[in-house]
Amino acid sequence: MTLPNLTPDVDLAAALFDALRAKTFDGTGITREAFGPGERIAHALVRDAAERLGLEIGNDAVGNLYMTLPGADRAAKRVILGSHLDSVRQGGNFDGAAGVLAGLAVVSGLKRAGFQPARDVTVMAIRAEEAGAWFPTSYPGSRAALGTLKPEELQTRRMDSDRTLAEHMREEGFDPGFVERGEHALSRDNLAAFLEVHIEQGPVLDAERIPVGIVTGIPGSRRLRAARVLGEYNHSGGTPRKYRRDAAIALAELAVGLDEAWCRLEAQGHVLVCTFCTLATTAEAGFTKIPGEATFQLDVRSESPHACDLIFERLHDLVPGIESRRGVRFELGVESGSRASPMSAEIVAGLQRAAQGLGIRHRLMASGGGHDAAAFAQAGIPAGMLFVRNQNGSHNPKEDMRIEDFAAACSVATRFVAEMTQGVAA
Amino acid sequence: MTLPNLTPDVDLAAALFDALRAKTFDGTGITREAFGPGERIAHALVRDAAERLGLEIGNDAVGNLYMTLPGADRAAKRVILGSHLDSVRQGGNFDGAAGVLAGLAVVSGLKRAGFQPARDVTVMAIRAEEAGAWFPTSYPGSRAALGTLKPEELQTRRMDSDRTLAEHMREEGFDPGFVERGEHALSRDNLAAFLEVHIEQGPVLDAERIPVGIVTGIPGSRRLRAARVLGEYNHSGGTPRKYRRDAAIALAELAVGLDEAWCRLEAQGHVLVCTFCTLATTAEAGFTKIPGEATFQLDVRSESPHACDLIFERLHDLVPGIESRRGVRFELGVESGSRASPMSAEIVAGLQRAAQGLGIRHRLMASGGGHDAAAFAQAGIPAGMLFVRNQNGSHNPKEDMRIEDFAAACSVATRFVAEMTQGVAA
Repeated sequence: MTLPNLTPDVDLAAALFDALRAKTFDGTGITREAFGPGERIAHALVRDAAERLGLEIGNDAVGNLYMTLPGADRAAKRVILGSHLDSVRQGGNFDGAAGVLAGLAVVSGLKRAGFQPARDVTVMAIRAEEAGAWFPTSYPGSRAALGTLKPEELQTRRMDSDRTLAEHMREEGFDPGFVERGEHALSRDNLAAFLEVHIEQGPVLDAERIPVGIVTGIPGSRRLRAARVLGEYNHSGGTPRKYRRDAAIALAELAVGLDEAWCRLEAQGHVLVCTFCTLATTAEAGFTKIPGEATFQLDVRSESPHACDLIFERLHDLVPGIESRRGVRFELGVESGSRASPMSAEIVAGLQRAAQGLGIRHRLMASGGGHDAAAFAQAGIPAGMLFVRNQNGSHNPKEDMRIEDFAAACSVATRFVAEMTQGVAA
Repeated sequence: MTLPNLTPDVDLAAALFDALRAKTFDGTGITREAFGPGERIAHALVRDAAERLGLEIGNDAVGNLYMTLPGADRAAKRVILGSHLDSVRQGGNFDGAAGVLAGLAVVSGLKRAGFQPARDVTVMAIRAEEAGAWFPTSYPGSRAALGTLKPEELQTRRMDSDRTLAEHMREEGFDPGFVERGEHALSRDNLAAFLEVHIEQGPVLDAERIPVGIVTGIPGSRRLRAARVLGEYNHSGGTPRKYRRDAAIALAELAVGLDEAWCRLEAQGHVLVCTFCTLATTAEAGFTKIPGEATFQLDVRSESPHACDLIFERLHDLVPGIESRRGVRFELGVESGSRASPMSAEIVAGLQRAAQGLGIRHRLMASGGGHDAAAFAQAGIPAGMLFVRNQNGSHNPKEDMRIEDFAAACSVATRFVAEMTQGVAA
């Protein structure tokens, strides 16, 4: 079956971006507190737009918003287009919101073309994705809907209010008991695919002059968040090399050693990142002292668990040698991490086909950061992501995205959804 | 001429150490503020002991205290034994005071043996040596006496009081005008030698089980106190290696590179130390970010200016390569430093001869830190230093020194002074 000439309603999205910015600008950047005022404003604005489009509207028990273009077969597994509406404090207008507005642009485009999908197409506005800004847990909104949020995670406290996720849910009129009772709103039984449009947050598409990225997976990670090196403070003039226990130079040696390992692994074809996010002598250090202590945070990510493991193997190889040569002791602290979440190969192929069909330049790429799509993939639901080229990174007021690049991603999403739902033009 | 069997009056020194500790203990450690209460107490205590010994007592215009055992020829150039009486805040009892009390132990020993020196032997209690704790300038007490303190250095402010050195001098009853008028109390014309006994402050003597060090020189330095590396903050997940401008890994690479250079220079026989006293990402850094800035302080010291220069040459060789490979920029800031101050070869030989004659184990060594002896050497006066083995470093309450090691140094000093002053037993 050939598809009609479907175009996304980018004007609708552009108007909504403007309205969101106007209503959630904090004087410096954009602030949309998860389960707080900014997110509430964004949900109300998006719900209102969906009502005007004539979509079916509902919430699940934990506060996610669903805006549905009904399909011919209401019992068939639906397709969800979605992302989150919260932002970091003093962040930008596009991180998260772009995925929800892309969903509305797609269904509005389908609707005005008179395209009736064979199955429901739902735009989902997800709660509370920005773990680093509000609740220090991963994807509580989507995972609550999927039934994979653990009841104890409801006790996570919002960093600014120091009140729990459960309290905040209740305050917004929702029911944390849904999570406590082990219920779920979404599963493989009622959901055929989840597609998330998101700004890239990295520099790759912009540097390579490509508007759209098709995400192959969300990397897993191995992380040290509170590692230390312990040596001994001594006089920098009076302590010859052989009597030193210099924590800082020991840490520098480890950092350079792991950087070299990363370099070698890349040359062998592994794809990963390895970052010492912090690396520092402590307040006790100062001029004419040899540093007796240093701290660091290490963030290793790859779609391949094996690549993360190779870096950590190298870490554990290097540490004993540095300790014995330099008279220091490493305390690596608790390791945390996450499993990699590969995107569905069928969805990746479908998105490629759609982009090729439309003549839109694109490339396959791993996601840098984590996204709600990871929660869907972990729950066994076929998930995919489209990245939109953006400027100035994300999580800052200068976060930027050209509307024509957003339109390109919406076009790919529209074509993909139309193919997946095998609708017929009216 | 053979020398009589002279022994230092170590009991006097031990009693004074106890009295000093009792009167300047701050609850945690020892605090003797330069031109402040602690130093004032120490000067009074030492002056009182010198009066009881029957020494001639006087001050110069800037507050240094002179306690003299008169020589047969009052016009001959005198010998000074001295060090400082101030301490860092919450420091130890020995750093500085040991040199003054050693002087008193020596002259008391000479006096009770009825030894009359051919020239004056003066014990000098010097003001304000602890530059890092009080006045951020080098050796203002000894340099004021030597006429090498610049008038503008009188405007240096004491770090705790924020009042100038001139004000503090005046408050203690002294005359900063002496410095402004370019006067001096000590010079090559009236001073034959300056000998400073001091705790080592480093671990070398203790590790090598040697009680006494004979100092060959006080190293010069080349220093960076406020250097920075500037890169760009980016998302640690979303930014592949080739798009990174990671300031921290660039700094780690420099630190390891200079450490390797130090190692090579040592293998070639150079004697130096090279310390990154601080090395740190800044407050803006954090988890999931690539560090966009890092700061460091570098302290390179050697008796040989050439060795310091070789490290800095390597620094300037390494920086451009790191900058271009890692997309960062180094801002090294203002370089500071000091010239090396070699001790007098005659004094070193005399001290060796004395130690050998007494059968006291000793070794030649460079000083780690700076000392008033450097000011004397820089002024062209033959200067020497004896280090006393100590435990737990210095500038902290656990600073320690065994009285028998102190006695060994006093014995060497006594023999050396007796030889230098060619006196006759009564």
